Formats: sequence, C-alpha cells, structure tokens
Amino acid sequence: MSTVYEKSLKLHEENKGKIEVISKVRVTNREELSLAYSPGVAEPCRKIQENKEDVYKYTSKGNMVAVISDGSAVLGLGNIGPEAALPVMEGKAILLKEFAGVDSFPICLDTQDTEEIIKTCKLLAPSFGGINLEDISAPRCVEIETRLKDELDIPVFHDDQHGTAIIVSAAIMNSYKLLKKDLKDANVVVCGAGAAGSSIIKMIKELNVNNIIAVDKDGIIARDDETREYDFLSRELSTITNKENLKGGLGDAVKGADIFIGVSAPGILKPEMIKTMNTDSIIFAMANPTPEIMPDEALAAGARIVGTGRSDFHNQVNNVLAFPGLFRGALDAKAKKITEEMKMAAAIALANVIEESELRDDYIIPDPFDERVVKVVSETVARVAKDMKICRD
Amino acid sequence: MSTVYEKSLKLHEENKGKIEVISKVRVTNREELSLAYSPGVAEPCRKIQENKEDVYKYTSKGNMVAVISDGSAVLGLGNIGPEAALPVMEGKAILLKEFAGVDSFPICLDTQDTEEIIKTCKLLAPSFGGINLEDISAPRCVEIETRLKDELDIPVFHDDQHGTAIIVSAAIMNSYKLLKKDLKDANVVVCGAGAAGSSIIKMIKELNVNNIIAVDKDGIIARDDETREYDFLSRELSTITNKENLKGGLGDAVKGADIFIGVSAPGILKPEMIKTMNTDSIIFAMANPTPEIMPDEALAAGARIVGTGRSDFHNQVNNVLAFPGLFRGALDAKAKKITEEMKMAAAIALANVIEESELRDDYIIPDPFDERVVKVVSETVARVAKDMKICRD
Repeated sequence: MSTVYEKSLKLHEENKGKIEVISKVRVTNREELSLAYSPGVAEPCRKIQENKEDVYKYTSKGNMVAVISDGSAVLGLGNIGPEAALPVMEGKAILLKEFAGVDSFPICLDTQDTEEIIKTCKLLAPSFGGINLEDISAPRCVEIETRLKDELDIPVFHDDQHGTAIIVSAAIMNSYKLLKKDLKDANVVVCGAGAAGSSIIKMIKELNVNNIIAVDKDGIIARDDETREYDFLSRELSTITNKENLKGGLGDAVKGADIFIGVSAPGILKPEMIKTMNTDSIIFAMANPTPEIMPDEALAAGARIVGTGRSDFHNQVNNVLAFPGLFRGALDAKAKKITEEMKMAAAIALANVIEESELRDDYIIPDPFDERVVKVVSETVARVAKDMKICRD
Repeated sequence: MSTVYEKSLKLHEENKGKIEVISKVRVTNREELSLAYSPGVAEPCRKIQENKEDVYKYTSKGNMVAVISDGSAVLGLGNIGPEAALPVMEGKAILLKEFAGVDSFPICLDTQDTEEIIKTCKLLAPSFGGINLEDISAPRCVEIETRLKDELDIPVFHDDQHGTAIIVSAAIMNSYKLLKKDLKDANVVVCGAGAAGSSIIKMIKELNVNNIIAVDKDGIIARDDETREYDFLSRELSTITNKENLKGGLGDAVKGADIFIGVSAPGILKPEMIKTMNTDSIIFAMANPTPEIMPDEALAAGARIVGTGRSDFHNQVNNVLAFPGLFRGALDAKAKKITEEMKMAAAIALANVIEESELRDDYIIPDPFDERVVKVVSETVARVAKDMKICRD
C-alpha cells in the first residue's frame, strides 16, 4: 500500500503539476478572434487608459491573486528554494479556486533579498487583485508584508502569519465558550515565535488575553535577557508579553498555564509538562507533520481539548478554513487592504459556524469541507471592509 | 448594429476578463486535500530540492509561459501603461492555450525601466517554462530580449520582433515560389524600423535577400547621414542594408523595388509609388488596424500580391500563425532557447503548409484556423531544437 507521499508524487507526475490557465471566451473563428484579440481588444484597452479603475471591469485582475514565495520557509522543509516550493504554491492556488472561486497564480521568486521581493511584488501588482505571501522566513516576512500593505492599494496577506492566527483565535474562543470561562483570565503559552507565533500573540491579545508567555528555541522570551540575541520581532514580543518577565524554558512557561499553542517543533511538549498545567487545559499542537505532542498522549496526560494541524485527528487547524473566504470577501468588496478588523471578523465568523450547543471537546473547529465556512467568512469580511470604507468605489 | 469594438467591450465586461486558473486535480475530500496539498505535497518538493530539473516533472512549469509587457507599445495604441495593456496580454495568453495547448499567464509590469524589466523577468523565471515578451517599445525590446536570452535557460521570444518576421518570411518565400523568381535578386523596401522591421530585415537576409532598404519616419536609413540621430538599432540597420547608401524618402526607396514590407503607419504608401515599383510587385502592408495602403488601391495601382494584418482581406499576416506553434515546439522539446534556426524552420514549415500547386496571388499565407499550421510548426521547431542539442535531458 502506497503512502500519502508516494500517492502525491504520482498525482503530481501524472498531471504535470496542478494548475492550468484556460480561456473564458471562445476563439474558434475569425469573428471570435477579432473580439477576444485584435482589433476588438483595443476598446477595453482604451477604456482602461481613460480610467485605470476599469481594469477591474474588463480584465481578470479583480478575481486574480498572486501566490508569492521565495521558497525560504516551506512547510516543514525549510529553505528549499523557489523551484522546490512551486508544488506548494500551486497547491495554494488550487485551494483558493476550489474553496472560494478565487483565481490565483503561483510565483516563486529567484531571490531571498527582502528589498528585491518587495520591489518585485510592486512591479507585478497591475495584473493582480491581491497578493498572498507564502512560506517566506521570519522575520523578513513581517517586514515584507508590512511594507507591501503600506505601499500597494490591493489586499496583501501573509497566510503563514495570519491564517493560523485566525483559526487559533476561533478555536480558543470556542474552547472558552464550551468551558464557560473568560479569556481575560487565561494563561497562554505560545511556543514558536516566528511568523505564525508572533501573529497569534498579537491577535489573541485583541481577544483580551492578557497573560501570554512566548517561547522560542532559546527559551522564554523576556526583556533584558543578556543570554539572548534579539531580532526586531523577538524584541517586540518581549515588550508585549511576559508581564512578570519570567525567564526559563518551556517547562517553566507551561506551569499553571491554561492554553498551550504550539507552532514550533515535533515532540517538544512532554506529558509531564501538561500535568503541571491548570485543569481543563487546552493544547493546540500545530507543528507539521508531527505535532509538539500527539493527541492521545496529551489527553492521557490530562489535557481536555486538543487540536493539531493534521487531518487524521479531531480539531484540525487547517489554514484552508480562513484564507479562501478571506480573499473571497476582500475581492468581492473590492477592499484595498486586509485589516486587523477583517481578520478578527473572520475569526469570529469561523468560530460561530459551530452553534454553542454543538460544541464538544473534539468539535471546537469546523471541518475544512464544511460549506458554510467560506460563505460566512467571505460575507463577514466583505461587510466589515465596506463598513470601514476601505473599498474601491 | 454594434461594431467589433462595442462587441468586444461587452465580451470583456460580461466575462470580467478572459482568463481563469483552474485545478487539474480534485480537492473534494480530506484524502484528496492531503495529496494535492499538505502533507503529501512535501514529496514532490523534496524531489525537486534533490534535483532542480524535476520541477519539469512535478509542476506546471514545463507548459507555462509568461506573457510579459510594460504597456509601452500596445497594438496601435502606443504607451498606454500596464493596466490598459492587460486585455491584450490576456488575449495573447488565451491564444497560446486555444491554438497550441500552452498554458500562459499575463503579467503587466509597473515599470518601463529596461534594467528593472530584465531583473524582474529573471526573478520570475522559476515558475515559467518560457517567456513571451509583448508590446515593449523599440529599441528597449531588443536589448531586453537579447539580455534575457543570454541570461536565462528557458525560451525567451519577443513576438512583436520575430512573430511578424517569421510570417513575412514565409509569405515572401511563397510569393517568389509562385512567381518563379529568386529572392537573391529581390529589391525589398522595409518601411518601419522598430521591433518588427529590424527583425524582418535580419530574417529575410537569411533568405539571401541582398538588396534591402530600410525606411523610418526620418526617411531612408543610410550611413553617415548628418541629418539623422541614430540609436543602436538604426545604426546597426544602416550597416546591414542600403548597399548603395541611398538617401531620401519612401518614394525614393520604392522606385524599382519588387517587395514592399510595411510595419509603419496608415496610408503612407501611395498608389503612385506602387506604379514606380517593378512588375509583379508584392505589397505586405501590415500597419494595424489601417494598413499602409488598402488592398484594393494597391491592386488597382498594379500590385500583384497584397497582404495585410487584417482578417477581412486575403493573405492575412496574423501572428497567431507562428507564436503558438513555436512555443509548443520549444516546450515539447524542452529547448533552453529559441534560436534563429528554429525561427527559420518555423517560417519554412509555415510556407510549406500550402502546396506549391495550391499557391495563388490571394493565397500565399495559410489561414489562421488551418489546423495543420500549429502541428507542422511545432513539430519542426521541436526537431530543430533537438538536432541542435539545446534541450534539457
């Protein structure tokens, strides 16, 4: 019996990749050719020349997202370069189409220079209605996204940062609803402080989670720690987390914690650590493909609610729950950007897909194939964008 | 009754552009998701990381062409910018797909700086199996294409330069076959010395046409003409044409000429000029949408064979006769470049689609919808590429 890896390899080879670019119009005779191309095509060109915004009316731009990577931080594979990253970007492109009807195109750049990536994205922008950054290593990804959001007038979204954050936010909202507890009292440990971890921390702070400790490979992120080399991201995190300026390792961090959120490395959360957490502890162990702790071990050690990134366990944190609906909504509203408010609205909408009465320890997050998800997320995101008046006329 | 322009505008608005990116694989349940995306997709990534050439095996790269423009010289519209150029690039993309099954994606760059365009194309190359440059103004387009051909290992082709040249070469070969004359004796005037004109001149020289006079807006291109400001392209043309270093205007150039090739401006070839040409004169008046002279006027003035760029007259020089088959052949052979030999082979193959016994004054060039065209052009181009040993293993 072949493994998922063997089957996937075969699928990719037999289809020679996963995407195809097709025509929405017929070109089978001279008249059709004269409308789709010369001379007729001159007319939409002239209209757009007169009013640049008409590019949304006469071209595919308004439904077209660029999926852009430099191949520097791909899945669990690391810095594998642009060519090797292409299967993931094609995958992302087809998920946008299959889940939300968003056209997108995978672009793997032959550079890992921050300024070159920013510049290239800006030069590509006329063809695209949005940009999804993907698998770019931290902390560069934060700078790239921030700059592009400032300098472009189309939605820019780095899924590795915010996609997981949106779903984890939904998951802990639903967990606390089920447990009838208040997030302002939650002690949260976020293990992994790169793209995803830092975004999770910033987002759950907006849920009034006040007590957060961030842990990275060098231990708890504290202020004025002479043993640590800070980059701009860890320095920022040190100022917005860890009120008591605790120092130490993961074991020290999780003592008395209510929630563990892992976006780090396989197997680093031990059962004996879970035993030191508060009762009704919540574990989201999202290292891929092997989580920080396996669900059965976590439950045996006393955890109450457990989620992972895997499809073979309950409570799967799968980014496909967020990014397709988010882009669908942003494009439908012709939003010029994706704001914090739109992301939070997406998280709340995602959480509310499951009625409070349906919530169970093993059903905190909707199924990725639940058709309600993309609908409510996109409608909510579009409504918030319009309310914020950040849309094209 | 609505015009072709009104109909085209409606077509573009109703379809919101012309291209769509679809999935070649199904993603309707967890298992399919695990094969097309995480975790299965890690396996093709790993294979490509081990051997970069496997990107042709497991991704869409090998059948994917970038159609890249800066919007600086679009159709007859001029420098209309990247957004307004997008309908043309989408059109080009669908022609590649509809005529030759080549996937392609339109990219309109927000720069007209030569170095930035070259740099961006190089950064985009990992996602693409070929690059079709389009509607970039001369002489920059020549430098951009030359540099990219040198610096990339995928086929790069500027259709405005070479597409017309290939078809005109086929057309004059067939014209001279019909007239039973030898091209080495032909006096040829090429009017318009930009992207297309310069490429036509270089290509017909390879057909042993020795007597060529190039004319641009300042008149006949001659050497040591103090009234002229040369750029690198006109300087080069002055050295490879105009043996007798004739000076003057278009009227002077066409006296005693056998063939007029126009890629210039509407209406500039007058009937009285045609009357000064040799008997059995041949006119290819390809200014778009209005040719240098209308076919009925040219024939009335004594021309024997007349072609234009238009679909409403006989002998249409339509680039769709060349570029789809050329890319199809280059991609099928995994050619690393498109060489002069491949272009010439395409021209000869295109000419030979019409049997010598079928040639008529008004049937010198095959119909764009003649299904034999893409087949023979692509097969010929692929064979030449393999013979030249310029293909990937």
